[in-house]
Amino acid sequence: MIFASDNWAGASEAVMAALVAANEGPAPAYGNDEITRRLEARMSDLFERDVAVFLVATGTAANALATAAFAPPWGAILAHRDAHLNVDECGAPEFFAGTKVVGLAGARGKIDPRGLIEALDAMPAGVVHHVQPAVLSLTQSTELGTVYTADEVAELAGIVKNRNIAVHMDGARFANAISSLQVAPSTLTWRAGVDVLSFGATKGGALMAEAIVLFDRSRQEALGYLRKRAAQLVSKHRFVAAQFDAWLDGEHWLDLADHANAMAARLAAGLDGTAAARLAWAPQANEVFAFMAPATAAALRTEGATFYEWPAGGLAAEDRPRPGEVLYRLVTSFRTEPAEVDRFVALVDAV
Amino acid sequence: MIFASDNWAGASEAVMAALVAANEGPAPAYGNDEITRRLEARMSDLFERDVAVFLVATGTAANALATAAFAPPWGAILAHRDAHLNVDECGAPEFFAGTKVVGLAGARGKIDPRGLIEALDAMPAGVVHHVQPAVLSLTQSTELGTVYTADEVAELAGIVKNRNIAVHMDGARFANAISSLQVAPSTLTWRAGVDVLSFGATKGGALMAEAIVLFDRSRQEALGYLRKRAAQLVSKHRFVAAQFDAWLDGEHWLDLADHANAMAARLAAGLDGTAAARLAWAPQANEVFAFMAPATAAALRTEGATFYEWPAGGLAAEDRPRPGEVLYRLVTSFRTEPAEVDRFVALVDAV
Amino acid sequence: MIFASDNWAGASEAVMAALVAANEGPAPAYGNDEITRRLEARMSDLFERDVAVFLVATGTAANALATAAFAPPWGAILAHRDAHLNVDECGAPEFFAGTKVVGLAGARGKIDPRGLIEALDAMPAGVVHHVQPAVLSLTQSTELGTVYTADEVAELAGIVKNRNIAVHMDGARFANAISSLQVAPSTLTWRAGVDVLSFGATKGGALMAEAIVLFDRSRQEALGYLRKRAAQLVSKHRFVAAQFDAWLDGEHWLDLADHANAMAARLAAGLDGTAAARLAWAPQANEVFAFMAPATAAALRTEGATFYEWPAGGLAAEDRPRPGEVLYRLVTSFRTEPAEVDRFVALVDAV
Amino acid sequence: MIFASDNWAGASEAVMAALVAANEGPAPAYGNDEITRRLEARMSDLFERDVAVFLVATGTAANALATAAFAPPWGAILAHRDAHLNVDECGAPEFFAGTKVVGLAGARGKIDPRGLIEALDAMPAGVVHHVQPAVLSLTQSTELGTVYTADEVAELAGIVKNRNIAVHMDGARFANAISSLQVAPSTLTWRAGVDVLSFGATKGGALMAEAIVLFDRSRQEALGYLRKRAAQLVSKHRFVAAQFDAWLDGEHWLDLADHANAMAARLAAGLDGTAAARLAWAPQANEVFAFMAPATAAALRTEGATFYEWPAGGLAAEDRPRPGEVLYRLVTSFRTEPAEVDRFVALVDAV
Repeated sequence: MIFASDNWAGASEAVMAALVAANEGPAPAYGNDEITRRLEARMSDLFERDVAVFLVATGTAANALATAAFAPPWGAILAHRDAHLNVDECGAPEFFAGTKVVGLAGARGKIDPRGLIEALDAMPAGVVHHVQPAVLSLTQSTELGTVYTADEVAELAGIVKNRNIAVHMDGARFANAISSLQVAPSTLTWRAGVDVLSFGATKGGALMAEAIVLFDRSRQEALGYLRKRAAQLVSKHRFVAAQFDAWLDGEHWLDLADHANAMAARLAAGLDGTAAARLAWAPQANEVFAFMAPATAAALRTEGATFYEWPAGGLAAEDRPRPGEVLYRLVTSFRTEPAEVDRFVALVDAV
Repeated sequence: MIFASDNWAGASEAVMAALVAANEGPAPAYGNDEITRRLEARMSDLFERDVAVFLVATGTAANALATAAFAPPWGAILAHRDAHLNVDECGAPEFFAGTKVVGLAGARGKIDPRGLIEALDAMPAGVVHHVQPAVLSLTQSTELGTVYTADEVAELAGIVKNRNIAVHMDGARFANAISSLQVAPSTLTWRAGVDVLSFGATKGGALMAEAIVLFDRSRQEALGYLRKRAAQLVSKHRFVAAQFDAWLDGEHWLDLADHANAMAARLAAGLDGTAAARLAWAPQANEVFAFMAPATAAALRTEGATFYEWPAGGLAAEDRPRPGEVLYRLVTSFRTEPAEVDRFVALVDAV
Repeated sequence: MIFASDNWAGASEAVMAALVAANEGPAPAYGNDEITRRLEARMSDLFERDVAVFLVATGTAANALATAAFAPPWGAILAHRDAHLNVDECGAPEFFAGTKVVGLAGARGKIDPRGLIEALDAMPAGVVHHVQPAVLSLTQSTELGTVYTADEVAELAGIVKNRNIAVHMDGARFANAISSLQVAPSTLTWRAGVDVLSFGATKGGALMAEAIVLFDRSRQEALGYLRKRAAQLVSKHRFVAAQFDAWLDGEHWLDLADHANAMAARLAAGLDGTAAARLAWAPQANEVFAFMAPATAAALRTEGATFYEWPAGGLAAEDRPRPGEVLYRLVTSFRTEPAEVDRFVALVDAV
Repeated sequence: MIFASDNWAGASEAVMAALVAANEGPAPAYGNDEITRRLEARMSDLFERDVAVFLVATGTAANALATAAFAPPWGAILAHRDAHLNVDECGAPEFFAGTKVVGLAGARGKIDPRGLIEALDAMPAGVVHHVQPAVLSLTQSTELGTVYTADEVAELAGIVKNRNIAVHMDGARFANAISSLQVAPSTLTWRAGVDVLSFGATKGGALMAEAIVLFDRSRQEALGYLRKRAAQLVSKHRFVAAQFDAWLDGEHWLDLADHANAMAARLAAGLDGTAAARLAWAPQANEVFAFMAPATAAALRTEGATFYEWPAGGLAAEDRPRPGEVLYRLVTSFRTEPAEVDRFVALVDAV
């Protein structure tokens, strides 16, 4: 009953097999190998557009580099207050860009268009006293298990486009969002106004493989240097490329995401029928948020379940725990078993 | 005939098998797993001392973080002029520490004690106009295929110790140095005055696994945050730990290094008997430096050999190419075959 | 009718005279002169404690250096959302410390103790994913013309002290706060738990003279280097010291602040009796905030009055403008004339 | 007998008078005042070209900001090994640009064209492992009291121009160079290929007034933000502008420089005739370098002379002290009296 995080899961069989296969013979270092070339072509196919791809070792690196590539030293990176980039990366984005991250409000992890406009108005163009908005970062799926529709992405992107602000998507769980929304990757990204995507494979079934997918080629040269300077250019690069390549092959990535999302839906449906748990909101990807009494959580943990308490301070009034309740996050993965889910629900029921 | 770099080789069988094995079942993320615990214990055994270990994805990250942990923003990092840290990391050390790298002279990649003393004297303590020497970084084995003996390390460390300067060792090829010198890892590191080691497994047989080994625990807390802020905390951490663990198991790492070094010796001996190549100096690890005519190099490349020209501008007069010659670097690895070496030598002979 | 900012005023006669006098003969550079020594002694007298003093050219430099001296690269600087440090310094604090500024809520520019506790709880100690709270910065007087009492400072400082967080006070208008509260400088600073003060003389009557006053000597050595590295060590240092010295001499600084505050009180009292303006809240220092119709503001500007509109988005509901109103800031200075104030009030009355 | 530094001198009478005059009435802050406007026009006249001017408080700030404006985070700033920017600014240039400073060799403080070409060749374009040369910084007059002729500037600028590298001139003593070379400011700067100039008035007669003069307007917007973020935008800006304006008025700056240079020539001529001192090389601006026995120096100091020992380690063989000698630097200023010079020479003669 592992619901602590999708990064507790290992790698899929197919990804691991590809890694072993990639070990055949020598290969040029630093991305000048055949597997990397193949992956780049596959990415362009997938996104229906010629893209530049920069592989890195962690999701934090992907976010920090992707945003730094578009933010001058006086540029602000705008992200949801609860975004990973704002609260879970120990200041990496500020460090990489040498600049400021500005947190925006919005219900259930999604940036509110009105709040975005207000924030932009507080940083008037040309006034040197204020950092200048340079990047808008959207998390897809969000930290709270919700998703932006393509229209919602386009609306937010539309607000910033005439202000010369780039749009970044933190897609550590992009696969789960695509699986949830059943749209093409291009629809959710560049066609909706996204300039650069952090495309994560790690949580979805790789060992460690994160890609920066650049739809706007103007920052390609800069990213090459920024990645090296940030110590993220992997020498035996084929081993990162091979993971991503196998993960994308034959819709494997979507099969894995479908499973994770289905497990979340099964978990939500199960909990919804119990007395001891209350769904915070309907999950739209692979994260379930539920309220329980701390004693219930403790009992579940005693039985071997792993999951984390989640801060509720920034939530809208109607999304906060009632007296006696605490908010918990339950994450499913490609490796979650239906039986795990059912046992967890049964335990909640039995409390 | 791959002599371009030891990072063109893949991973050893044992390392790859350990990676596959590590994929069994779920495991806590971010280093809270069993394999990481085991590796930490193994490292302390290996170094005969309680050490703190921080795994990262690249050698540049290991160097930049290890030095940044000891350098305040006004601190200078002193390294050989030809050190990887000074010329091959696109400014990563300056970026991570927010400070200055000062290049030191010395023959064949090794810092000269007199030059070190002069450099220190040029940065008098307490004068705010000058950066203050904070870290001395030694590369072991060096960029020029030479090694520092334990006494040489101790001499350099002794010069800086009374000035409150930390000693870092860039051990991207530490295994090759140990294999060459036939001393215990402790003898070459903390017993000789080293405070922190970049211990590289990637070039020696892993896919991507680099460790910062901290002999001075005072910087342990700082390094934990610095690593995360630098986007180098790998989420599925067990997969990095498993590589390193298998690589160290049963002296596997030394077997691999012995082989690489032996191949370099074989190559050097072979070239020494040819008319078309001239050894620049005797190799002490897994890198051979030789002078050849560009036409010779071109002919070898036509036959499929890969290797790089090497800048000779900073070398001592007696180590520079003669008219008509160019300096080339030939790197061997754990995967280099004797037949490859012999074929290369035969081709040189035949030119 | 200059109410745009107190930095539109020039320097007091006494300060200017001291500057001229300081030009007599040669003097050692970089702070090794007699006037600097004298100022340091005067500061220690004023604060009833041995303090270290670092003079810089701008208030932004004082804030960014004072906080950077206490914040490691992974440390968060906590400040009110509306603090100068958070919104008016173009990212200087993030740049100088290489870290993150976290904005806190609170009515009328003052940090709310409960909000502070919640913010701290969201950054649990020892968790490397989150920046660690390192500095709490209080603005005194605040951006909204209010002041913290010594007890309020002590309460906030008390919350953070057991968490190893330093307390910084942004005293760009410290003189106005002292004048308002009628307490000793020591009472409002180190006796209440403040570790470092940005003590500004520029707004209060100097040309350009800002001091970092360090009550905690442990950061003295670091600040010396940080100031030079930040290009804030003025070479002809006596000319900054002379301004500050004359400003502090014989309570001149308090006389100037008393006047500025009195002009604000006069302005507030005057506006309170008009129909066309409504006081937002009672001024406690030298800044008056009032609601007016834009047309009223326009008419006043036509008559030569200067003042700025002020963002009201972050204010508590009861402090926001009503329909048809806009919030304006009116700043008085040591040079504001009673006649200016009266003419302004009369013009408002006449609208 | 003050020969320690030209920043031991105070301000000229005319500059001080202008400062007092500038205190009349209120003025908009942050450079939106009349005096700043007037100075900008005067600068454009002086340089015979429309220039952008950014005033800052220190020479280090001018250098660090001017170079940062042209250097991306992966860009190298190339400067003479002995340049102020490389050795006397505590890492400010690395900090401001987030990048690396590369020291170049060359006799008597002047960069050697061949050495420049070699350094450039070591950083091949497009190779992400190496920082990319972005700015060439020339010091005029140099740290060793020599000057580059306009042709020499043009030669060095010509080498880098086809590589997309900007040319910066550190003109902390630009006035002394102009006075020495008797050429127009435009001849020595943009007409010779200089893109940006650190134009210092402080050493030459102001209290604290340094200008970044931008010949390449493409970086103007960036510099506005960079200056504020670096805490160098002075609020009561008129007081910096007034100093510079008066200094430039009516060739006052050149009169002051002529005097300083003449005093250096007088000092050199005098020392040349003594037995106890030996000129290191002929001064070309306001700095004299001479060899003396330490006992001689000690005797002079006992008589009240101030001057500094100067490191000779990096000098060419023929410029180094002979056994028993030490190298000393003697700086003259606009305030140096002929009698001071003569007394010093007499004392040397008497030793």
